[in-house]
Amino acid sequence: MSQSINQRVVLAKRPVGRPDPNDFRLEQSSVPSPGEGEVLLKVEYLSLDPYMRGRMSDAKSYAEPVAVGATMVGGTVARVVESRHPDYAEGDLVLSYSGWQRYALSDGSGLRRLDPKLPPTTALGVLGMPGFTAYSGLLTIGRPRPGETVVVAAASGPVGSAVGQIARIKGARAVGIAGGAEKCRLLREHFGFDVALDHRAPDFAAQLAQACPDGIDVYFENVGGKVWDAVLPLLNEFARVPVCGLIAQYNAHGRAEGEDRLPAVMYAVLSRSLTLRGFIQREFVAEQFPSFLRDMGGWVESGEVRYLEDVVDGLENAPGAFIGLLEGANLGKLIVRL
Amino acid sequence: MSQSINQRVVLAKRPVGRPDPNDFRLEQSSVPSPGEGEVLLKVEYLSLDPYMRGRMSDAKSYAEPVAVGATMVGGTVARVVESRHPDYAEGDLVLSYSGWQRYALSDGSGLRRLDPKLPPTTALGVLGMPGFTAYSGLLTIGRPRPGETVVVAAASGPVGSAVGQIARIKGARAVGIAGGAEKCRLLREHFGFDVALDHRAPDFAAQLAQACPDGIDVYFENVGGKVWDAVLPLLNEFARVPVCGLIAQYNAHGRAEGEDRLPAVMYAVLSRSLTLRGFIQREFVAEQFPSFLRDMGGWVESGEVRYLEDVVDGLENAPGAFIGLLEGANLGKLIVRL
Repeated sequence: MSQSINQRVVLAKRPVGRPDPNDFRLEQSSVPSPGEGEVLLKVEYLSLDPYMRGRMSDAKSYAEPVAVGATMVGGTVARVVESRHPDYAEGDLVLSYSGWQRYALSDGSGLRRLDPKLPPTTALGVLGMPGFTAYSGLLTIGRPRPGETVVVAAASGPVGSAVGQIARIKGARAVGIAGGAEKCRLLREHFGFDVALDHRAPDFAAQLAQACPDGIDVYFENVGGKVWDAVLPLLNEFARVPVCGLIAQYNAHGRAEGEDRLPAVMYAVLSRSLTLRGFIQREFVAEQFPSFLRDMGGWVESGEVRYLEDVVDGLENAPGAFIGLLEGANLGKLIVRL
Repeated sequence: MSQSINQRVVLAKRPVGRPDPNDFRLEQSSVPSPGEGEVLLKVEYLSLDPYMRGRMSDAKSYAEPVAVGATMVGGTVARVVESRHPDYAEGDLVLSYSGWQRYALSDGSGLRRLDPKLPPTTALGVLGMPGFTAYSGLLTIGRPRPGETVVVAAASGPVGSAVGQIARIKGARAVGIAGGAEKCRLLREHFGFDVALDHRAPDFAAQLAQACPDGIDVYFENVGGKVWDAVLPLLNEFARVPVCGLIAQYNAHGRAEGEDRLPAVMYAVLSRSLTLRGFIQREFVAEQFPSFLRDMGGWVESGEVRYLEDVVDGLENAPGAFIGLLEGANLGKLIVRL
């Protein structure tokens, strides 16, 4: 491996608002050598996910920001190419958190050996962090009951599409919201949502009200913004809102002027006994990951849960693909093949 | 009783913003006679509570609004003065929901016979709806653990004072917020809060931060407004916020202009895995009222929970006392003696 060159994408500077290609920089270095107890990993697939926008900022968050000049973080599927670790052998395929780079060292902590019978990219999507986010948030916080109405936005993405399909497996109605006719068609035809709505429609709020004649029992929030405004008046007494993401406001910066929407939200929380609960999937990993792999693995195998991947080639294309992701440009789980 | 005159306070018109004495009207009528299966109740004590402000409005809420011209609703302690109901005898003291009037009929539904050994007014306060609100909301949603920090505003009121005392019984630190030096002294000396803070202090937010060096684990919300703004940055990961009331915004009307505080709140909910959960105590009555009466009755008897009542004489003074309640003018549970 010593003749190879490592390539990595580092955070060049912190974005203000929408990230720009110049916020990233492609760097080269030599491939490192594993020490005793380490493995050298060659990354085959890199996952691109909305949470990475948060890591680019230094605002207080649940995780440390990426330092300026450091390699962008991210989940990866990697091959062990050299091992000085007793548990891993050359050729093993593992899930790792190696970030936006071709080669990485690991002391084995946080690695998970992948089942060679499954497509490796599923470990980054439907059977990985996004799928587990949907599973744990929907079932632990949302707790949909048969006949209830579950609404999810960004519904064609890897989290939203799993939310809708799991909701239906649990006997609930699934209403999916996405941007544009193509994504809405996908929701109906590929993912089996009961209703698909385009949030860009001028009468979107009215369409949502019509699609939810019995109100909304679970709103899986991963968008924020105008979709939330349309959802709020429809939430039923005792509705549950797992707050998983706010992609519509990730690129916002500065103070939000205009109407203060907080009093109306707090009044709704009070008068309709709503639950708003933020979560990061890692909270539930220890307790639920085994049951997730069993349930979701079974559903994927049986075809009850379908998934969609959007694979981009080349590490150098990761920044552009990521910027597009924040604007909803892709269809399905965004993965970079290295 | 037939020679007596009934008196009642009706809603004369719906208030816009702060209620005004002219929003109420004192009316007289003859005392009704109980039919078969009914009792005639003579109200001895009327409870005045912030939730009544909501009933005066016709905004969508968890309960029907009081109709214009109808008797104001409210919890009462009443004496059975004539009974044609098999379960009640003349002279029985009951908890009823007779509203702002001297006499009322009841078919027995919703009546609870009171223990004659306890002061009857406690059934409206520490051993009644306000005490149960504190108990059920704090223990079911707040779930304070030993060593955690519990913050409550309107802390000298019947709900807040019970929240603080139950938090301490459960091993948590209790930080109480109230308006003015006299109420703060009461929090420390009468109710045993660890810290008492005056929200009118110009450096209130800094004082709160200093009083919570390990952050806030439970914020029992019954105020809203500026107190919430000071609490939000201090909430710890996984903090719980039972939303029980928003007295600071009950009198608000129209759109709130200025900074939109919602994005910052949603971001905090997401990034710190917060739980915001609105509730009305009746949700928990069937399951928890017996344990409440046992626990809280024991704590009151042992002196571990203390209470304070502010008794006003005369039904005609109820409107003025209620208006004062919304402005924090009273000390302790506000009760009208008829």
